[in-house]
Amino acid sequence: MIYFDNAATTPLDEIAIDALRKYGVENFYNPSALYKEALENSRVLNAARENVLKILHGNGDFVFTASGTEADNMAIYGAKKTKKSRIIVSAGEHSAMLNPATDLLNKGYDVKFAPLNSDGSLNFDEFKKLLNPDVSFVSVMHVNNETGAVNDLSRLVKTVKSVAPDALVHSDGVQALMKVRVNLINTGVDLYSVSAHKVHAPRGVGGLYIKKGVRINPLILGGGQEKGMRSATENLAGIVAFSEVLTKYDKNFARDAETRKELLSCLRNAFINEMPEHVVLSPENSPHILMVALKGVRGEVVLHALEEYGILIGVGSACSSKKGINKFQSLLNLDDEHKEGIIRISVSETNTLAECAFFIEKLKECTAKLTEYKRI
Amino acid sequence: MIYFDNAATTPLDEIAIDALRKYGVENFYNPSALYKEALENSRVLNAARENVLKILHGNGDFVFTASGTEADNMAIYGAKKTKKSRIIVSAGEHSAMLNPATDLLNKGYDVKFAPLNSDGSLNFDEFKKLLNPDVSFVSVMHVNNETGAVNDLSRLVKTVKSVAPDALVHSDGVQALMKVRVNLINTGVDLYSVSAHKVHAPRGVGGLYIKKGVRINPLILGGGQEKGMRSATENLAGIVAFSEVLTKYDKNFARDAETRKELLSCLRNAFINEMPEHVVLSPENSPHILMVALKGVRGEVVLHALEEYGILIGVGSACSSKKGINKFQSLLNLDDEHKEGIIRISVSETNTLAECAFFIEKLKECTAKLTEYKRI
Repeated sequence: MIYFDNAATTPLDEIAIDALRKYGVENFYNPSALYKEALENSRVLNAARENVLKILHGNGDFVFTASGTEADNMAIYGAKKTKKSRIIVSAGEHSAMLNPATDLLNKGYDVKFAPLNSDGSLNFDEFKKLLNPDVSFVSVMHVNNETGAVNDLSRLVKTVKSVAPDALVHSDGVQALMKVRVNLINTGVDLYSVSAHKVHAPRGVGGLYIKKGVRINPLILGGGQEKGMRSATENLAGIVAFSEVLTKYDKNFARDAETRKELLSCLRNAFINEMPEHVVLSPENSPHILMVALKGVRGEVVLHALEEYGILIGVGSACSSKKGINKFQSLLNLDDEHKEGIIRISVSETNTLAECAFFIEKLKECTAKLTEYKRI
Repeated sequence: MIYFDNAATTPLDEIAIDALRKYGVENFYNPSALYKEALENSRVLNAARENVLKILHGNGDFVFTASGTEADNMAIYGAKKTKKSRIIVSAGEHSAMLNPATDLLNKGYDVKFAPLNSDGSLNFDEFKKLLNPDVSFVSVMHVNNETGAVNDLSRLVKTVKSVAPDALVHSDGVQALMKVRVNLINTGVDLYSVSAHKVHAPRGVGGLYIKKGVRINPLILGGGQEKGMRSATENLAGIVAFSEVLTKYDKNFARDAETRKELLSCLRNAFINEMPEHVVLSPENSPHILMVALKGVRGEVVLHALEEYGILIGVGSACSSKKGINKFQSLLNLDDEHKEGIIRISVSETNTLAECAFFIEKLKECTAKLTEYKRI
């Protein structure tokens, strides 16, 4: 099996299984109970929180949630704002941000969707036109989940705060974590969402960074866990698994990033040099995703054809794939010959150049065959 | 270690670890992707959903959430209601329901808290007085998480619908699942919350049953998973673990329930016959919890004293323990000698009569010593 859909999800690292066992079967005590085994688990929970904050280079708090989606929802719904104030989210956001933003728009809030460049990055010039002193909340993802385009968060924060000093700037970092270097203090973002399952840690774990001094409302109320910011019995096993996996991959970051870069370059060059009929949408700075618009074939058909060779790819966000929606079809002004042909290849450090070569060979075969069928 | 805090959380069953590995490490594919491995996982997800529905004897849908708390929040916030309509929740609800209800009250909704009997069960006569045709939402837990009192859901539903036919009736079943027989079709409830970690399945998994024909709004928006009712990449490994653990314990239900009953009877009789100075708050029908108000000592002090003998108990809901709040202190009209002495013993089928005997012996020693200290 050649797995090229690492932006959708990743296999669990064995050290995560060890943590799930340790804090599920053995030290399973509820961190909110009062006996010393529980207090020890409360200490373990907070050590995991500090570790995540250290790896993100954040100064503030980190609230564990059940997903990146929940963290995004918490950010936009929890940020205090009035109906008169403006909310700006980029048009390229994940549906975990686009759908809550649309919900607020429908409820009468002033919500604007900032246009993208053709590579999926934020169009800064167009973005600036939407800014005014009444902006209360801005969300622009760190690494685009479809093209891999990296947005400059420092520039974003400076641009926003120069016009609306009190606005909260959120970034969805789900595809950035362990793919690009994240330094939240340097970027100055107020809120930052991450997810565990994109980096070999369990599904059901995510979190929201909240910069020191920033106040938002919780999304889920109850027993007051996570300092009242996110109630529910703490998923300690999943949280420790996340923290330990982050430590491991953070240590190998430079090596793994180099591997991913090499793999992406190989794929990109093959498209540019050997299959110039297709359009490479991803920019050069994408750390792990290559989005391509294939000519004259449907992305989904190619996906199924490659599947026969044990190659698994995506056609955009897995979260929207079943609905047949790919926002880049409409956003990127692709011509008729390319607009149905979008595929997303997302690599991990465990992929190899041999896998890339096999993929390229089979892709050529499949597209040739499919184009042939079409002619007949 | 003698673990008598099973209402707070439970250790993971080994079959759950197997499922976490199988769908985390091996068949780890995102159920929302399009290749056949992902479609197979989508099938596995829906089979788990059907299995949970079968075990709950439900007719409708089951939306997987990350916790019982999230399910409770989804129920009360998602039920469509106007500010003029009335919301009734019992005063004994878990904070996952009480706090959202208080939030709605603060936002101008007509929210009433229905009084309890002294054993923690709903006071039906007082409840009926709060009913009117404008009631839109009612929430009364199935098994009280502090006393173990079992509420009659069939009677509740009939009573509510006779006055307010369109009201949605929700029940928090977190402490009921695998403790009492649950038959949702027979009770007629519209919404029912459960949690996995109270029944030897992973934390980070819960769910909300939605009766066929009932429509509520989702709490978390995004990729549209769970038919749009709860977005986020599906936690398949945790969900399968939950489903498989339920199947196992459902098979052993009669035997395990008998074991728990025997253990509770032993404890109850010891209090009544050998320590009549303490007040047993839990009713006879409690399936796994014995709440007692000890005379002349503080519950938390006894908890720590017993800890020295390796006996772990609670002082009420773990979710509220750290805040030193025990709602029964104010609800049950305990006299001054008892009101600080609340402890909660919650048994599991793995506890033994020998453990109960040891607990009783050590409790007597501790309370004697602590009362002695007090006199000096």
